[in-house]
Amino acid sequence: MAIATRLTERLGIRHPIILAPMAKASGGALAAAVSHSGGLGLVAGAYCNRDWVKREIRNAGNARIGVGFITWALEKAPELLSEVLASKPAAVFLSFGDPGPFADEIKAAGATLIVQVQAMPDARNAVAAGADIIVAQGSEAGGHGERRATMTFVPEVADYVRAHASDTLVLAAGGIADGRGLAAALSLGADGAVIGSRFWASRESLAHPNMIDAGIAADGDATIRSSVMDIARRLDWPKRFTARVLKNAFTDRWHGREDELIAAGEPEVKRWGDAWEAGDVTVANTFVGEAA
Amino acid sequence: MAIATRLTERLGIRHPIILAPMAKASGGALAAAVSHSGGLGLVAGAYCNRDWVKREIRNAGNARIGVGFITWALEKAPELLSEVLASKPAAVFLSFGDPGPFADEIKAAGATLIVQVQAMPDARNAVAAGADIIVAQGSEAGGHGERRATMTFVPEVADYVRAHASDTLVLAAGGIADGRGLAAALSLGADGAVIGSRFWASRESLAHPNMIDAGIAADGDATIRSSVMDIARRLDWPKRFTARVLKNAFTDRWHGREDELIAAGEPEVKRWGDAWEAGDVTVANTFVGEAA
Repeated sequence: MAIATRLTERLGIRHPIILAPMAKASGGALAAAVSHSGGLGLVAGAYCNRDWVKREIRNAGNARIGVGFITWALEKAPELLSEVLASKPAAVFLSFGDPGPFADEIKAAGATLIVQVQAMPDARNAVAAGADIIVAQGSEAGGHGERRATMTFVPEVADYVRAHASDTLVLAAGGIADGRGLAAALSLGADGAVIGSRFWASRESLAHPNMIDAGIAADGDATIRSSVMDIARRLDWPKRFTARVLKNAFTDRWHGREDELIAAGEPEVKRWGDAWEAGDVTVANTFVGEAA
Repeated sequence: MAIATRLTERLGIRHPIILAPMAKASGGALAAAVSHSGGLGLVAGAYCNRDWVKREIRNAGNARIGVGFITWALEKAPELLSEVLASKPAAVFLSFGDPGPFADEIKAAGATLIVQVQAMPDARNAVAAGADIIVAQGSEAGGHGERRATMTFVPEVADYVRAHASDTLVLAAGGIADGRGLAAALSLGADGAVIGSRFWASRESLAHPNMIDAGIAADGDATIRSSVMDIARRLDWPKRFTARVLKNAFTDRWHGREDELIAAGEPEVKRWGDAWEAGDVTVANTFVGEAA
């Protein structure tokens, strides 16, 4: 059964579901598969690796897809946005930073502007920037996010948006992995849902098979929000954002000892990076949400 | 409109809603008001202050109510359970500890055994103890809890309970404060919801009026989970549980500096306690959930 909402109407899709643009997992094949199944697939622009992003947009073939960026990373490579917009994406999804500087260019190109937010000031800023769709992301989400929970954050954002920009849609993200979660999201006042982990664990995902196996074997108690993976990757994330991953020996050792990890320097950076490439889940962390 | 579920049928109530037994807030008047309105009210046995508990059970008058305890506190005062059971409560609600030692006595007295859980091992233990109703409590909740979110924890507990004890009911707690939240809880597979903050902010609540005002004025971004209030109250909470409160100058100063707060000793204990009595929300913390 298809569920019609303002989102399905606005985007011309069959199911009120959008693929989370997950770094190194949401490539062209996964985005195309979601779009072909009646949702909207998004390729992960993520940290703005130009070759990766352009290749994966090509890999989506003729599917109607969007592209998502980490906003603070796009600030460092703004020219990539123009290149991506030239491919006529259906939507551009921005998260983790101020969408304001990019909003006009995105909307002028005819793409739907989707802005993901993690706290109330972000939601107010997204409305001010003219977002077409605002995604209220709860801390249940895998990968980066903040501390508000989907259950309370979605209705709070929905109330604000209805009062200040009633044509703007609201989606729920974080902890939604099945029909029950989608139904709950709609009950909370959302027009649809952004789904990550469930699609991350699919055949079309670019995640390492060992990590997918670890994610499927885990339960929701097995995850943690931490910054130690970002220290190990030398990624310059703003302090407010942590990432949810499966706990392993690396987080057991370093979570809460971040200063010591920074002091440990290159050997730990190399150890984590090598393990990531090799799919060694005992060292590199599996990025997955609490809905695991 | 009344929503009939397995919970309304099992307890003979009109709405699938139970009052959270909130320490120092859920007294007899509030419990009676919830029961008279068609839910089930619970008096807070909490830390087992015998005089307080017995007085508030009396204050509920003829209303059909239950009583809730902090399980690890009840272990230190088990005789209070027998005294409470003599008043023929409709239900006994246990949270934060092993219900096993108390289950037989509660069920033999004809009371419904409700066990609140915060992680999957607790849920398995509650089933093993023969709980009639299991409450899956998310971290959104005000007061004590742990780190799982309602959105993912409820379906995970519901799946486990359906497979292992299909006659046992599941309720959702944490972040539910209106009809949208109740609808979401039912969508996630729960038979009803436990509601705290919304009732905490009512006229019948025993919470200090200044704290209720502060809770109503706050948004969901304004809360934090911390242990510093328990240090200030010299309460011996197991390390896994923190409490959600409104952030204030006290949490700004001490959260993350717990060892220094312990070292600060009696002056800070007295300062927090005096502020609590006086309703000074700049020092004593307001216990309220993310649904604020």
